[in-house]
Amino acid sequence: MSLRPFDTGDFAERMRRGAEAAAAAGFDGLLVAPGPDLQYFTGYRPAVTERLTMLVLAAGRKPALIVPKLERPDAEHAAGAGAVVMADWTDGSDPYAAALPLLGDGTRFAVSDNAWAMHLLGLQRAVPGSSYVALTESLPMLRAVKDRHELERLAAAGAAADKTYEDILNVRFAGRRESEIAADLASLLREHGHEQVDFTVVGSGPNGANPHHEAGERVVEAGDAVVLDFGGLKDGYGSDTTRTVHVGDVIDPEVQRVHDLVREAQQAAFEAVRPGIACQEVDRVAREAITAGGYGEYFIHRVGHGIGLTTHEPPYMVEGEEREVVPGMCFSIEPGIYLPGRFGVRIEDIVTATETGAERFNNTPHAMAVVH
Amino acid sequence: MSLRPFDTGDFAERMRRGAEAAAAAGFDGLLVAPGPDLQYFTGYRPAVTERLTMLVLAAGRKPALIVPKLERPDAEHAAGAGAVVMADWTDGSDPYAAALPLLGDGTRFAVSDNAWAMHLLGLQRAVPGSSYVALTESLPMLRAVKDRHELERLAAAGAAADKTYEDILNVRFAGRRESEIAADLASLLREHGHEQVDFTVVGSGPNGANPHHEAGERVVEAGDAVVLDFGGLKDGYGSDTTRTVHVGDVIDPEVQRVHDLVREAQQAAFEAVRPGIACQEVDRVAREAITAGGYGEYFIHRVGHGIGLTTHEPPYMVEGEEREVVPGMCFSIEPGIYLPGRFGVRIEDIVTATETGAERFNNTPHAMAVVH
Repeated sequence: MSLRPFDTGDFAERMRRGAEAAAAAGFDGLLVAPGPDLQYFTGYRPAVTERLTMLVLAAGRKPALIVPKLERPDAEHAAGAGAVVMADWTDGSDPYAAALPLLGDGTRFAVSDNAWAMHLLGLQRAVPGSSYVALTESLPMLRAVKDRHELERLAAAGAAADKTYEDILNVRFAGRRESEIAADLASLLREHGHEQVDFTVVGSGPNGANPHHEAGERVVEAGDAVVLDFGGLKDGYGSDTTRTVHVGDVIDPEVQRVHDLVREAQQAAFEAVRPGIACQEVDRVAREAITAGGYGEYFIHRVGHGIGLTTHEPPYMVEGEEREVVPGMCFSIEPGIYLPGRFGVRIEDIVTATETGAERFNNTPHAMAVVH
Repeated sequence: MSLRPFDTGDFAERMRRGAEAAAAAGFDGLLVAPGPDLQYFTGYRPAVTERLTMLVLAAGRKPALIVPKLERPDAEHAAGAGAVVMADWTDGSDPYAAALPLLGDGTRFAVSDNAWAMHLLGLQRAVPGSSYVALTESLPMLRAVKDRHELERLAAAGAAADKTYEDILNVRFAGRRESEIAADLASLLREHGHEQVDFTVVGSGPNGANPHHEAGERVVEAGDAVVLDFGGLKDGYGSDTTRTVHVGDVIDPEVQRVHDLVREAQQAAFEAVRPGIACQEVDRVAREAITAGGYGEYFIHRVGHGIGLTTHEPPYMVEGEEREVVPGMCFSIEPGIYLPGRFGVRIEDIVTATETGAERFNNTPHAMAVVH
C-alpha cells in the first residue's frame, strides 16, 4: 500500500481546525510546542528543543511560527511551512519578547502538554495576566480523531505488528534471555516496515508481573507465561500490541484462568466501544469483568491510551475521562492482571471507533499461544 | 578504561548538593522532572512521561520521588532509589494532589527546564500562590560542573569521536550522497563505543551554510567544503565534534580564508577560557575575531553549549550569560561562518575548564583535511 504524503493543504486544514477548536473553547489561541503536536500541524520536527520554537494558532489570523534563527532553513523545508508566517529570534536575545507579536492581544491560551516548563514560565512573565491550560485538559481530542490518511497508516502499522507476532511464535524461547527475544522483536518490527522501534517488552515468569518491565537478563524457561508488548512507528504512525504466550504446553491452571479472564475483559471492553459512550466506560467494563473474576486489585493501570504520531496520547481510557468516544478515535484496549512475584498477563489491541462500534487494527488470535 | 558505575552514595551526594543549592538560592525546593536532571540525581530514566514523575529535593528533608504506581517497580531498581522516599499515584486519581505532601509547606520552587507544561500547570493550581523558576535561570550550574567520574566519561566520549574523525577521512566522499557518509559516521561512532548516535551532520557545498542541516541526498563532489558534525552518548555521556573538510586539493581561496578565520576564532576562544571570566566572554572573543575578519554577520549562533548527560545543556556560551566559568565545566567551542547558497565552515571541540585555563577533549587537527 502506497501512502500519500501529507501536503501543505493537509497541514493548513489541520491548523484551521486547531484555531477554530481553540476559539470555540474560549481561548485566544493555541500554542504548539515541538513534538507530536507541531508535527501534526506543520510536519516540522526540530531536533533540539531548549531553544524556543512555537506555533501560534488563532482564529482569524494566519498561523505563525517562531523559530531560532539558525533553525529557520530547516523549518522552511517543512511541508506545512507554506501555510504559516514565520518569525525568528537570535541567540542572546529574549525569545519571549520576540514571540509577543505572535500572541496578538490574547491572554488565554491552550498549550501543548509537553511544552517545556521553562518556556511556559517565560511566556507567563512576558504576558502579565495570561493564563494557560494544557491541551490534554483543554482540547484533548484535537489529534484524537484521525482522518482517513491517518487511519490507513495506523492500520498498516497494526498489520506489521501482527506479522511480527506471527513470526515471533516461531523463535526459540526456552533457554534464551528475555533481551535476546526482545532483539528478535525489534528486528521483526523493522523487517515488517517499522522505521522506529519504541519498546519490546519481554516479561517472563515473575517479570511479567511488572507492567513496565522491558526485557532483562532472565533466562526464559518452560512453564513461564511471557508478556510480549511491542511497537514503534511505521510511516510515522504507531503500533502497540500485547500478547501473553506460554512456554510449553504444561500450563498452571491459575495462569490459564487469569489469561481467560483478561481475554474476556478485553473482548467485553472492545464490544462496549461505540460513539457516545464516555471513554471511562471502556475502562469500567474491563475492570468490572476482572473484578467479578476476583482479580480487580491486580489490574493496576488504565485500560487504554490513544495512539497516532505517538504511542501514548489522548484519548485516555481511564476512570474520570468523561469525554465521549467519537468515530475515528484510535486507542489501545489492554487489560492486565499482575500477580507480584509470580506472573502477569496482558492482551492489547489497537482499535478505532466506527459509526457503529469499533474495529481492531490487530487481528492475531488472543488465545494463549504455546511457544517452545 | 573501565569506568566505575555511579552508586547510591554518588546519587545521595548529588541530591544533597541539589537541595543545598536550591536553599542557598532562596527556594523551598527543587522539582526534578524525568530526563537528564532526574537521571543525574537518581539514575532513574522512565520511558513514558505524560504521567507525573517528580523528584523533590529540599534542604533538611529526605529526597522524595513520586511515580505512577505501575512504574514503581522500575523506579525502585534505579541506583539512587535507596536514597529517596518513594510515593506513588494510580491512574484515575489526581497526581498533583498526591504530590502535595512531598512539597511540604513550600511555595517557591526551582523546576527542571523540560518539566511538562501540563505538570507545571497542575502544580500551580494545586499550590495556590506558588512560584517557579526554570533551572537554567535559577540554578543553571547545578549539573554544569562535572565531577571526576563524569570528566572521565566525557574524555572517553571525546576520544571516541576523535577516532571516528580519523577514520572518516579515509572513506570516499566524491560521488557519494551525504546520507551515505552520515551512515558511515554513525557506524564509526558505534564501532568506537558509542551506545547512542544523536546526530551525523554532513553539510556539503551549499548545504554547509545551514548550521542545522543534517544529511541529505546531495551527491558530494570535488571542490566541496563539507561540514562534519557528529556525536552521541558513550557510557551515558556526550560527544560533539565538528571539522570541516575539503573534497580534493583545489581549494577556492575564499573557502580557505574563511576556514583560517574560523580556526583562529576557535583557538582564540579556547585560549580565553579560564575560571572567573563570564561565559559570554568566550562567545565575544570568537565573535570579535570573526567580525574583525569581515564575516561577523555570517556567524549566526552562540559559540557553545554545555555537555554531559545531554549534548545541549548549561552552561551556554552566549551573549548575556554573565555567570562565571568554573573549573570542571564542560562545553563546546564551535564558531562557524555560513555563506547562504555557497558554503559553510565550523570547527568544534569539547573543552573543560581547569584551574588555569582549559583542556580539549577533542584533539584531532583543525587544519582543513583534504578528502577524496
